[in-house]
Amino acid sequence: MTRTVLESKSKTVIIGFDEPFCVIGERINPTGRKKLAAELEQGDFSTVEKDALEQVACGATVLDVNSGAVFSNKMAEDPRYADNNFVEPPLMKELVSRIQAIVDVPLCIDSSVPGALENGLEAAEGRPLLNSVTGEEERLELVLPLVKKYNVPVVAISNDDTGISEDPEVRFAVAKKIVERAADFGIPAHDIVVDPLVMPVGAMGSAGLQVFTLVRRLRDELGVNTTCGASNISFGLPNRHGINGAFLPMAIASGMTSAIMNPVRPQEMEAIRAANFLMNNDESGQSWIKHCKTMESVKDGTSFAEAAAAAASTSSGGRRGGGRRRREG
Amino acid sequence: MTRTVLESKSKTVIIGFDEPFCVIGERINPTGRKKLAAELEQGDFSTVEKDALEQVACGATVLDVNSGAVFSNKMAEDPRYADNNFVEPPLMKELVSRIQAIVDVPLCIDSSVPGALENGLEAAEGRPLLNSVTGEEERLELVLPLVKKYNVPVVAISNDDTGISEDPEVRFAVAKKIVERAADFGIPAHDIVVDPLVMPVGAMGSAGLQVFTLVRRLRDELGVNTTCGASNISFGLPNRHGINGAFLPMAIASGMTSAIMNPVRPQEMEAIRAANFLMNNDESGQSWIKHCKTMESVKDGTSFAEAAAAAASTSSGGRRGGGRRRREG
Repeated sequence: MTRTVLESKSKTVIIGFDEPFCVIGERINPTGRKKLAAELEQGDFSTVEKDALEQVACGATVLDVNSGAVFSNKMAEDPRYADNNFVEPPLMKELVSRIQAIVDVPLCIDSSVPGALENGLEAAEGRPLLNSVTGEEERLELVLPLVKKYNVPVVAISNDDTGISEDPEVRFAVAKKIVERAADFGIPAHDIVVDPLVMPVGAMGSAGLQVFTLVRRLRDELGVNTTCGASNISFGLPNRHGINGAFLPMAIASGMTSAIMNPVRPQEMEAIRAANFLMNNDESGQSWIKHCKTMESVKDGTSFAEAAAAAASTSSGGRRGGGRRRREG
Repeated sequence: MTRTVLESKSKTVIIGFDEPFCVIGERINPTGRKKLAAELEQGDFSTVEKDALEQVACGATVLDVNSGAVFSNKMAEDPRYADNNFVEPPLMKELVSRIQAIVDVPLCIDSSVPGALENGLEAAEGRPLLNSVTGEEERLELVLPLVKKYNVPVVAISNDDTGISEDPEVRFAVAKKIVERAADFGIPAHDIVVDPLVMPVGAMGSAGLQVFTLVRRLRDELGVNTTCGASNISFGLPNRHGINGAFLPMAIASGMTSAIMNPVRPQEMEAIRAANFLMNNDESGQSWIKHCKTMESVKDGTSFAEAAAAAASTSSGGRRGGGRRRREG
């Protein structure tokens, strides 16, 4: 049975076919979040810390940490800031230590810059996930030695030097090549988490079916766990949460075991919790029932993040029924 | 490719692996609806007619018609009314003709009483679905000749004289037996729609996984279409629509092609429309986009049934954009 083991300082998270779906929170990522990038440039980590706490409260069991910031103001003063190899390594180190100081979940070290990956791996406690290797020759030769050296699992994205193929057969072949190349480095298949690449269904009608078929083959033929950038599926469409909320259970039923996604969205998280129950990965529906209680507060006007945080603090503080008693008093 | 062809007076509905999921509206069923049974006893068909119109507006493409009423008052006056063989045949005839007078969708003739099934088959225009045969010997010998005589497809429920097995292997074997027995009558597999039986996941943790596995086997090994009473899965649980709304896409991804369900529920119908899109059975997402427009009215306080009826009348009347123009004027 394929088990990808991730660890934080004191917690173990297993990605696997018989485990609850692993939600990797995607929010800590300055790419495309200009406001966050500007804050980081000023050494302000308040949004990062808020995002870390909220995502974990809402159900993320792993947090992605992406250091891909562009520091526009500093760049104007000092040309070295135009180089991500200069900006990202120290930023990654700082992000990892700030996040680890307030949440105890495994991290997913995410950068295109080798120095940032290595700094993240050095700074991370436990056994983080590395994000990512691709089928590109340069990337394979650069990332797989890090994976081996630090003995960590890695996200393998199924594109290569020819780009992203629209043909799922090609994407499967790229994934197979990465698994084989990793084996040459002594990295086992259970430490490769393949991202089969999700296209927008609005642009390519077969995008959903491709993912479901690929995930099943990756599981049955290569024995690997899988992940994806889930929200890509609904790009450009109205009511994206409705599409995402059906896509995730369908991918889970097809064998997908994790996703890099926004866990602060109640519709997607409800779908995942229901899917865990239906896959027999939620004993007696305990998580489902707890989630339903949280959602009752959301109906009263509280945000999902606030309600989830309140529920988490109540249960971790051992004050069972405390919320109810307060309301009665 | 397995295609189960249903017909009304002028419309054809195909249940198949490459077709949008077939929603069979379950509402016209006096079993467990005491108020409806009392109305029918008084010859009042207003709720039936309302349910027919609403279910079709909300997206049912087939309507189940169940005649299982208990006429308590008449029974007190005339002991013959204690016998369903006396009550149901004329009631089924009346139900079918009333419903056909106002909606043009194929019907699913649903009764435990042979005379009601035969009356329904006589009264139905086009090619209805018969509901149901089981693996019970008496039922096989009684229903399969009707299926053959009227050349209609039939729902096959996978229980037999030993009852409903909790073992999915046994349920698969019962389905196989029905398909083989039907073949002896000259009935092809594509006219058998198997219901693998859905248990409540709250009572049996493996209930969801059982259905997903069975549906895939029924499709791959027997080449049959499938259906189920979808809401059984969430029996006894909080937020049932949340469970149903994940179960349906997961069943669809596993190969389920129809369900007998309540189409007036927006969460379930949104999940199905998203799943159709993701299975590449909604060209350019046209149905999805139309559904999103309907749901905008629901946000304004209109019920789903009202909003769907308004959207249906606008599009069928050929007044494209009429609603928008009215609002602007």
